[in-house]
Amino acid sequence: MSQRAPDHLLERMLFFSDAVFAIAITLLIIEVHVPALPRGASAVQFWQELVHLIPSIFGYVLSFLVIARFWITHHAAFAHSPPFDAKLLWPNIHLLMIVAFMPFATAFLTKNMGAMVPALIYNLTLVVASILSVRLVRRATSLGDAAGHHGEEQLAYLRTRGLAILFAAVMALVLGLFVPYVSQAALASAPLWLYLLKRRARSRVNAVSSS
Amino acid sequence: MSQRAPDHLLERMLFFSDAVFAIAITLLIIEVHVPALPRGASAVQFWQELVHLIPSIFGYVLSFLVIARFWITHHAAFAHSPPFDAKLLWPNIHLLMIVAFMPFATAFLTKNMGAMVPALIYNLTLVVASILSVRLVRRATSLGDAAGHHGEEQLAYLRTRGLAILFAAVMALVLGLFVPYVSQAALASAPLWLYLLKRRARSRVNAVSSS
Amino acid sequence: MSQRAPDHLLERMLFFSDAVFAIAITLLIIEVHVPALPRGASAVQFWQELVHLIPSIFGYVLSFLVIARFWITHHAAFAHSPPFDAKLLWPNIHLLMIVAFMPFATAFLTKNMGAMVPALIYNLTLVVASILSVRLVRRATSLGDAAGHHGEEQLAYLRTRGLAILFAAVMALVLGLFVPYVSQAALASAPLWLYLLKRRARSRVNAVSSS
Amino acid sequence: MSQRAPDHLLERMLFFSDAVFAIAITLLIIEVHVPALPRGASAVQFWQELVHLIPSIFGYVLSFLVIARFWITHHAAFAHSPPFDAKLLWPNIHLLMIVAFMPFATAFLTKNMGAMVPALIYNLTLVVASILSVRLVRRATSLGDAAGHHGEEQLAYLRTRGLAILFAAVMALVLGLFVPYVSQAALASAPLWLYLLKRRARSRVNAVSSS
Repeated sequence: MSQRAPDHLLERMLFFSDAVFAIAITLLIIEVHVPALPRGASAVQFWQELVHLIPSIFGYVLSFLVIARFWITHHAAFAHSPPFDAKLLWPNIHLLMIVAFMPFATAFLTKNMGAMVPALIYNLTLVVASILSVRLVRRATSLGDAAGHHGEEQLAYLRTRGLAILFAAVMALVLGLFVPYVSQAALASAPLWLYLLKRRARSRVNAVSSS
Repeated sequence: MSQRAPDHLLERMLFFSDAVFAIAITLLIIEVHVPALPRGASAVQFWQELVHLIPSIFGYVLSFLVIARFWITHHAAFAHSPPFDAKLLWPNIHLLMIVAFMPFATAFLTKNMGAMVPALIYNLTLVVASILSVRLVRRATSLGDAAGHHGEEQLAYLRTRGLAILFAAVMALVLGLFVPYVSQAALASAPLWLYLLKRRARSRVNAVSSS
Repeated sequence: MSQRAPDHLLERMLFFSDAVFAIAITLLIIEVHVPALPRGASAVQFWQELVHLIPSIFGYVLSFLVIARFWITHHAAFAHSPPFDAKLLWPNIHLLMIVAFMPFATAFLTKNMGAMVPALIYNLTLVVASILSVRLVRRATSLGDAAGHHGEEQLAYLRTRGLAILFAAVMALVLGLFVPYVSQAALASAPLWLYLLKRRARSRVNAVSSS
Repeated sequence: MSQRAPDHLLERMLFFSDAVFAIAITLLIIEVHVPALPRGASAVQFWQELVHLIPSIFGYVLSFLVIARFWITHHAAFAHSPPFDAKLLWPNIHLLMIVAFMPFATAFLTKNMGAMVPALIYNLTLVVASILSVRLVRRATSLGDAAGHHGEEQLAYLRTRGLAILFAAVMALVLGLFVPYVSQAALASAPLWLYLLKRRARSRVNAVSSS
């Protein structure tokens, strides 16, 4: 589990990525519009305004967790500090482009809660983000791991765990065609997929090592 | 007081956190709306506009100091550069989620100065942030301190000092139910709580070492 | 290909630059306005709204790629970690000033798609950015490369590759005077210019070494 | 001129500061509002809109340069990488608070160009920022310079150069009381002050060493 410091070209790339993730995740709050009531408004009126904000706040929490999950995967993908390779640059930029798009997709979803098209766009965004994340993880983990940071099982899991959000997003996508209002609930299945992918990684590695 | 460099997985996590703190603290100014008066407006009219901005500017200063205080605690919590542990990731994300929520809570408070519900939401946000901060500090300081960076007294203080904002926020919360307009003033008690917690940490450590 | 760690004054400058690039690139999404339709709007109405957003989303993708390309050049320009020199500071600030201006130029272009003046301003912004980028790259690569990180061919290419966006932007600029709607398409010629500049760098270096 | 790497507590503080500077400087563009004209508007109409934007763009450039100058001073103040001292934290936070306030002061100035009060507020902001900057520089440079990074003359200059913006801002402040429209021009005297302060630092050091 040695953790070599990344060389400085990789470090700058990770740094730039962290900044984009951090900005995208923090910008989410901008789309939760602040109610301003006339002076002397009653507490009841304020609570009503807050009730109207529930979709926006739900979207804030959901997308915060989703972007955080992509960041954690990015963080794990470079844990072994591979040597810098210029072939990482564009796949990384493409992932960041879809991550930075999340505040839009989130606001479109939450301002039109219950409508099919915004839910479709949101879930499609997650599908594309998952695919780009899996692609980047595979490229990062194929660059050699001289320090042996990742065990075999850990590596097998890392290379597939991006699929958890993909599966959850596809479920949400399909569900959204029929019952838009609750389609996002399907995203809550991500931890289940993570668990299944972890089990599969373990059994695969065991199968290989016992053969 | 040696200060080991954090390993690169911890460094990325701290880096990502610093960026979120920095963005949240800088976004606060966006909610202070810029008055634009017609050409030829008198100086008196400009001063009147600025007087109307007092709550917003008060909120800017207050929340800047509050977020800075949470950042300083975060900074101290990882001063001993514990080895990276994946169990830090989510408690850290949860703290960041509430920190990034502060610009909303601030604007809701200052645009409705004197109303009970916005003051309640603001103080509740601080209460939750304090609890999540204390939780993260405890996890970070339980990961061992091989370098002996923190003295016993310093550690005891560090593990409780997040409570200062908690106590101040609870006071503000209770006060806000009765006199919303001045409830935020209770937050000024935070330094007092910090002082009391420091004394308590010292006397506790002394009690242990003299026994 | 050794990669020395930059000294800490250079590192801070790169860090600050990366943060500005990251913020400018992520702010682009703010200018894509989120449609909010009345409850019960049909899917057809949502798709129509999205069709109206095509110019904004096109501008988001275009400027994301353009800023990313400038960042990649910046990243390459300091790959050899020259010693810090205060003469780098202002040329770097000037480049950042035009990069941070991109969200404005982008929104002006996409909100007035097909008009000549906004296309002119956008392309002029790229022209200025390219010139400032080439200037910074030249200064950075003239500071010595003790580690021999850049080969002769690589260096010759690096010092000219900023011209690719310059040539593409000038083409777009000229084309925009006649057919504003498609002038941005000329920017797609950037990879072609990159390829030609790479070939020229190679043949030049070969000519020198065979003489 | 050796450049020690800062210890990690100082590094995090510098990092956090760089991020706040970077966000404040990049947010400036948000206050330059993007004109959207109806389809078919003539080029003349677009140019007219751009003429109306001149104050905003002037403010963008001015404040970009001002914030960059404060960042460069901050960068120089920690060039010698003093050991971390908790007494740096709050003076640094106070400087960041006024830097993050700059986008507001800028927009207030440029949306009300020619009015006295906004020019007063803008120049006052610079005065406060200069004082806080000088205070932080003094504290940072008093922490010892074991590596002898700063020469005597350089140090004397560093400790006073923050006064250049202070003098320029005071001139602008006084001028603004009489001719608001051009008061900002007085800020252009900053390089002159810098030059005078540099000469004074040199002659002082020479006087001491020849005595």
